[in-house]
Amino acid sequence: MPAMNLVELIAKKRDGGELRAEEIAELVTGLGDGRLADYQMSAFLMAVFFRGMSSAETVALTRAMLASGDVVDLAHVPKVKVDKHSTGGVGDKISLCLAPLVAACGVAVPMVSGRGLGHTGGTLDKLEAIPGFRVDLDVERYQRIVEEVGVCMIGQTERLAPADKRMYALRDVTASVESIPLIVASILSKKLAEGIDGLVLDVKVGRGAFMKTLDDARALATALVRVGTDAGKRVSALLTAMDEPLGLTIGNAIETREALEVLRGGGPADVVECTLALGAEMLRNGRGLAEAAARDELVAAIRSGEGARVMERMIAAQGGDPAVVEHPERLPSTRARVPVNAARAGLVTAIDALELGLTAVDMGAGRKRVEQAVDPAVGIELVAKTGDAVAAGAPLCYLHVHEEAAAAQWSQRIQGAFSLGDLAPPPRPLVIDAIR
Amino acid sequence: MPAMNLVELIAKKRDGGELRAEEIAELVTGLGDGRLADYQMSAFLMAVFFRGMSSAETVALTRAMLASGDVVDLAHVPKVKVDKHSTGGVGDKISLCLAPLVAACGVAVPMVSGRGLGHTGGTLDKLEAIPGFRVDLDVERYQRIVEEVGVCMIGQTERLAPADKRMYALRDVTASVESIPLIVASILSKKLAEGIDGLVLDVKVGRGAFMKTLDDARALATALVRVGTDAGKRVSALLTAMDEPLGLTIGNAIETREALEVLRGGGPADVVECTLALGAEMLRNGRGLAEAAARDELVAAIRSGEGARVMERMIAAQGGDPAVVEHPERLPSTRARVPVNAARAGLVTAIDALELGLTAVDMGAGRKRVEQAVDPAVGIELVAKTGDAVAAGAPLCYLHVHEEAAAAQWSQRIQGAFSLGDLAPPPRPLVIDAIR
Repeated sequence: MPAMNLVELIAKKRDGGELRAEEIAELVTGLGDGRLADYQMSAFLMAVFFRGMSSAETVALTRAMLASGDVVDLAHVPKVKVDKHSTGGVGDKISLCLAPLVAACGVAVPMVSGRGLGHTGGTLDKLEAIPGFRVDLDVERYQRIVEEVGVCMIGQTERLAPADKRMYALRDVTASVESIPLIVASILSKKLAEGIDGLVLDVKVGRGAFMKTLDDARALATALVRVGTDAGKRVSALLTAMDEPLGLTIGNAIETREALEVLRGGGPADVVECTLALGAEMLRNGRGLAEAAARDELVAAIRSGEGARVMERMIAAQGGDPAVVEHPERLPSTRARVPVNAARAGLVTAIDALELGLTAVDMGAGRKRVEQAVDPAVGIELVAKTGDAVAAGAPLCYLHVHEEAAAAQWSQRIQGAFSLGDLAPPPRPLVIDAIR
Repeated sequence: MPAMNLVELIAKKRDGGELRAEEIAELVTGLGDGRLADYQMSAFLMAVFFRGMSSAETVALTRAMLASGDVVDLAHVPKVKVDKHSTGGVGDKISLCLAPLVAACGVAVPMVSGRGLGHTGGTLDKLEAIPGFRVDLDVERYQRIVEEVGVCMIGQTERLAPADKRMYALRDVTASVESIPLIVASILSKKLAEGIDGLVLDVKVGRGAFMKTLDDARALATALVRVGTDAGKRVSALLTAMDEPLGLTIGNAIETREALEVLRGGGPADVVECTLALGAEMLRNGRGLAEAAARDELVAAIRSGEGARVMERMIAAQGGDPAVVEHPERLPSTRARVPVNAARAGLVTAIDALELGLTAVDMGAGRKRVEQAVDPAVGIELVAKTGDAVAAGAPLCYLHVHEEAAAAQWSQRIQGAFSLGDLAPPPRPLVIDAIR
């Protein structure tokens, strides 16, 4: 197909036409082999931003992006393979306790994760807080660990969906990130490349999430489930609240510590509930279990310690120190732990997850640009959550910082992120809805 | 301004916001100095395609593109300077007779023109059919010829509105050509760089024009006049019909010959009328003349031969053979002139200018890609125009080709471009409206 026709395909989308699967494949392969320039793809992506894509187009885009790279072959693993993907939130460390628990229940979890960018953290950064832990394994070792341990968590390689990497980089600098079909194709092309049979999506909604409104989140979840199902996978989604941070920790080592607490039978109620809800959904997609039965198995895997043992085996297989599971004090920590106190007495009516996430980035826990390194030890440890009563001068949270004096610069901003009132806010469910 | 803010400007336009003049200037200068990549500009251009631009934004874009290069200084020319720009049509050779006639009436015409691309011809290609004629003069010589002759016609230099050149190239390959604010800024940034006081726009409408509907043409003309006026110039526009070709010739040397006929007092009625209408508008903008008085002066300049003498002086000043004005047989010609005959008797009800224009390109008179050369001699010479009666087997037109045998391949297509019927079509005016 000559280059001129690729321009006509941009014009067709621009004018609201529906592209055929082979036309979408031409655009994506054209980007790969140089027939379509970056400036043409960015114009196409902006046209998609305005015109949207049909379900069939989104499936075709997902498949074309998937086909730009390898698909990991996990046929040698005799279990059903189900992964979880979160659209990102503040304090979202669920993957770290969820994946080993689900693996302990007989469903393999091959997980290719990302790093944190902006106000949301990344699973890879949290895993790397574990001394020695390696996320940059080659595909062969990843395949072996999934087979032997039942779970492996690595970073994206150059060979998985390279078209997504290039298109995402273009969207990021051309203001075309916020497009549901493009988000769907980006997420699913990477996830389908893992070699999975099923997938559970945690679509977060609220102040600290990418999707701020329930309508937007529901539209994204629905599209993800439809396109993933059309691609032949067992896919479902939970809509979960992300107005206040999840759990009591924001920061890499302290979030890992909190996830390990869950595996040892502890952890904050919302982290446990999110883990059980997503785990039950994964067992549903992987083994057809009803929710109550699935939750029973997950709770049993916590109580027996089997989830913790799987985590130890995975950490060891990926070069890390498995003793952190029972001895989280081996994780990196800061010398100082400085309280931020309430200016008045009252009930916590809201905690701005976005503000706390951005502050944690500023403290060094996350990155503003992809090339930045993160500090594993720093972070924010909450004492009060929404609905809790605090006394005047009592701590709202503790800042984990290397030098006590450093805390002062963030105190005011953090105080501002906590809303205090006199009336208790209405309780809000963590899991808002399921899309199947 | 850091690069991140340029992305925010793309997002602002994407979301329907109105950019401030300095924000638009940032984008255009950013393209020039490398802070804005091609793929970012193409996404911005696509966002403008969807969101449009206010009049103030279009003025700002025009000014920013103008400021990307030099503005020719014609202050040393003591006359008022007025140019004409056509949005392009088939058989449109008007500039070649219009410019010297207007110059003969005391208004200087500094004209920077383009080459043909696609089905519409270009003034530069027609001028270059004159033996020796040079369109690639430097700015200093252009300034001197405008002063000494009153008219000079050259091609765009690298120094005039370079941002337009780069942005147009991007639009051409990203399906964002058809955007009124982008067309307006592209045309006006180049024209304002010529050093003009006034401008007349010939906005063509119909089958053979860029604007197919009267509504679209009127919208473009209105925007051009408003933005040009806001930029401090005396600007007006005529909407003229472009359903059938203008005049009786399509092709470089034969169109030049036809334009020279007008200067000698002949030429087809529609070419003469278009010349007088646009010339009167230029004298109106340049000297404040009423239409009747302006037409009288133009006709007098034809009758006295003064228009022809100015053309000879311009041709000589630009290195060409001035004898072509009185001896058009000195222009290049083909050995063969092959008739295409009517298959039946009837009245010509329509002639498809687009089809004839595309056929002429195919014959070698135009170019499909910018790097192609044109053949000055080949073309299509019409015998019948809309409303004319033809006998079965009588010629509709003659093909000017180098080998008689070559004509056969185009005959059927050309026959198909002529609609024959039994009822005379209603007469349609050439000049549809004036926008001032």
